[in-house]
Amino acid sequence: MRKIEHIGIAVHDIESANTLFSSLLNTNPYKMEEVESEGVRTSFFITGESKIELLEATRPDSPIARFLEKKGEGIHHIAFEVADIKSEIQRLKNEGFTVLNEEPKKGADNKLVAFLHPKGTHGVLVELCQDATPTP
Amino acid sequence: MRKIEHIGIAVHDIESANTLFSSLLNTNPYKMEEVESEGVRTSFFITGESKIELLEATRPDSPIARFLEKKGEGIHHIAFEVADIKSEIQRLKNEGFTVLNEEPKKGADNKLVAFLHPKGTHGVLVELCQDATPTP
Repeated sequence: MRKIEHIGIAVHDIESANTLFSSLLNTNPYKMEEVESEGVRTSFFITGESKIELLEATRPDSPIARFLEKKGEGIHHIAFEVADIKSEIQRLKNEGFTVLNEEPKKGADNKLVAFLHPKGTHGVLVELCQDATPTP
Repeated sequence: MRKIEHIGIAVHDIESANTLFSSLLNTNPYKMEEVESEGVRTSFFITGESKIELLEATRPDSPIARFLEKKGEGIHHIAFEVADIKSEIQRLKNEGFTVLNEEPKKGADNKLVAFLHPKGTHGVLVELCQDATPTP
């Protein structure tokens, strides 16, 4: 794990949340992006070497919609940047963690991502992410 | 806000959580510390320029004990490093945020800290922190 890549925060209304987090962080989101496959609309703010990602559901059966229904707004996950997601998945499986995505999937912000089951990480939904752009 | 200083995670048993997070983060905690006034025992891990802080309650009426009882284990707060906590408290009050500590208080890891009410921040408990060591 190289660093905290981002913290994901589930919100009901991303437009009003953008306004509030712009005020809190004293900076505007540098981009917004919809991830159709996850049923989510996201926005990203820079803070130091990490990001804050806001997540709004775009359909009622998406994971974020279910999270909001069950727990309400708040922190949804921590994402750690890894150098090589496939070898990190293997390392964590060997350590006994339950990896929810054997094969990394495409996430927002041009990342390959995989999640660990929060039951095995003291209730924390952990995302691994690696830049999807091949290094030259 | 300069960066994410740390993410606080509430756990039932800090010893077993230390073992698991050491395995997850591939590094050991660099220190443990009890904050008597908060009724909490903490441990800290480095990840990039940020830290992961585990929090275990030391008495049943502490804020962490109440959080664990209500929500179970998981992410408890995000702490942002600020250059000048007093001026940041004033800025955020002017922006309409509810600051829970008008006067910064002493936190773990040699910090002056203040919290924002999560009702005003989309369910996220936000901590501001500034190094308590006076700069020469």
